[in-house]
Amino acid sequence: MIMNITTIAFDADDTLWANEDLFVATQQQYMQLLAPFRADWDAEELHAAERRNLAYFGYGIKGFTLSMIETAIEVSNGAIPGRDIAKIIDMARAMVHAPLPLLPGVAELIPQLSTKYSLMLITKGDLFDQEAKIARSGLSDSFRHIEIVSEKSPHAYQRILQRYDINPQSFVMVGNSLRSDILPVVAIGGHAVHIPYHLTWAHEHVDIPANERTWQECDSIADFTHWLAQC
Amino acid sequence: MIMNITTIAFDADDTLWANEDLFVATQQQYMQLLAPFRADWDAEELHAAERRNLAYFGYGIKGFTLSMIETAIEVSNGAIPGRDIAKIIDMARAMVHAPLPLLPGVAELIPQLSTKYSLMLITKGDLFDQEAKIARSGLSDSFRHIEIVSEKSPHAYQRILQRYDINPQSFVMVGNSLRSDILPVVAIGGHAVHIPYHLTWAHEHVDIPANERTWQECDSIADFTHWLAQC
Repeated sequence: MIMNITTIAFDADDTLWANEDLFVATQQQYMQLLAPFRADWDAEELHAAERRNLAYFGYGIKGFTLSMIETAIEVSNGAIPGRDIAKIIDMARAMVHAPLPLLPGVAELIPQLSTKYSLMLITKGDLFDQEAKIARSGLSDSFRHIEIVSEKSPHAYQRILQRYDINPQSFVMVGNSLRSDILPVVAIGGHAVHIPYHLTWAHEHVDIPANERTWQECDSIADFTHWLAQC
Repeated sequence: MIMNITTIAFDADDTLWANEDLFVATQQQYMQLLAPFRADWDAEELHAAERRNLAYFGYGIKGFTLSMIETAIEVSNGAIPGRDIAKIIDMARAMVHAPLPLLPGVAELIPQLSTKYSLMLITKGDLFDQEAKIARSGLSDSFRHIEIVSEKSPHAYQRILQRYDINPQSFVMVGNSLRSDILPVVAIGGHAVHIPYHLTWAHEHVDIPANERTWQECDSIADFTHWLAQC
């Protein structure tokens, strides 16, 4: 296969660093906090609130926190005391400043790739959360362009490629979400490499039969660089 | 005065449409909600929480809402019931979808200016809130570039001008905040036009003696277009 890739764009959360783990861990703390009020509930009520609130609050820690507070009031039938709501807001602040574990190979391979390719970071979510994470990652100097979007639609990718005058044929997007990183890029004629993460947020799940896949699957960022060397 | 302006950038909130009014109105509703718990408090406690939380939650409706919830718990000494906290979250949802009143002259003059100049929108705040407002404004087709940043520093403006290869001498920024729209642009050698708004968020207040002003003051967007015609 001969491809002329000049620009590599990476997703950030769960592609370069672990992120979903932090939401899962916070959710566990949260369920313990609510256990005295109703023992038999599961996280589905929280997930339903998150989905309902997406149209009002978007993605990110603050929207998640407002959904946790709202669900706590519902699940406890209004009995949750103020000091427990304050603990939920403390959890949000802890998430904002939580350690940001880079995934294996990322700290070495991203700076290396930046010497040969024009690298971009394309991430979805809350501007404030994402900028804070990029700054803490220590990787920002490796990226020529950083784009934070509210939704990763085909149109959003098209706008980014036009802005920097990039041909989709010479562009590859690398990410863990089929829904956000792979399908919209394939739809506009770009290349895409899927590196699955061990946790996927329910909202990002997509099922595609193996024979309909028009993208590359890789196990890790090291695996991706091997694939790239053969392009 | 002869200037060769080719790009005009506008701030959005309280420059193109009324925004601070919505925060003030919500705050009044909120103070009524809390009146039964402590009659003698003033909004300074809420403002202090907002300032403290800026480093965790940034600007926008969601951060403001988390600060309202936290202050409600403090002011009521934990006695505020869950159903009142739920009402605060309802206020946040109402803010997200509140009417967006364009300021006088904006609906006519922005499309007119876009036929002669390259227009940009440069706005600070929550990505989700700002995108929703831009979409509802009906003005987005008039803007060649839309930039949403988390903080309007000289560096943030410099990055935007570099991205689009714009000379600061041919660039003018129009906005209501000296701190965010005027001073950082003057600092990097661009032109700036200040259109004060009748409400200014305490965080944006700056005092500058009249004889040190290196920017243009205008009363309205119509007044700005008159000034521009003479440049």
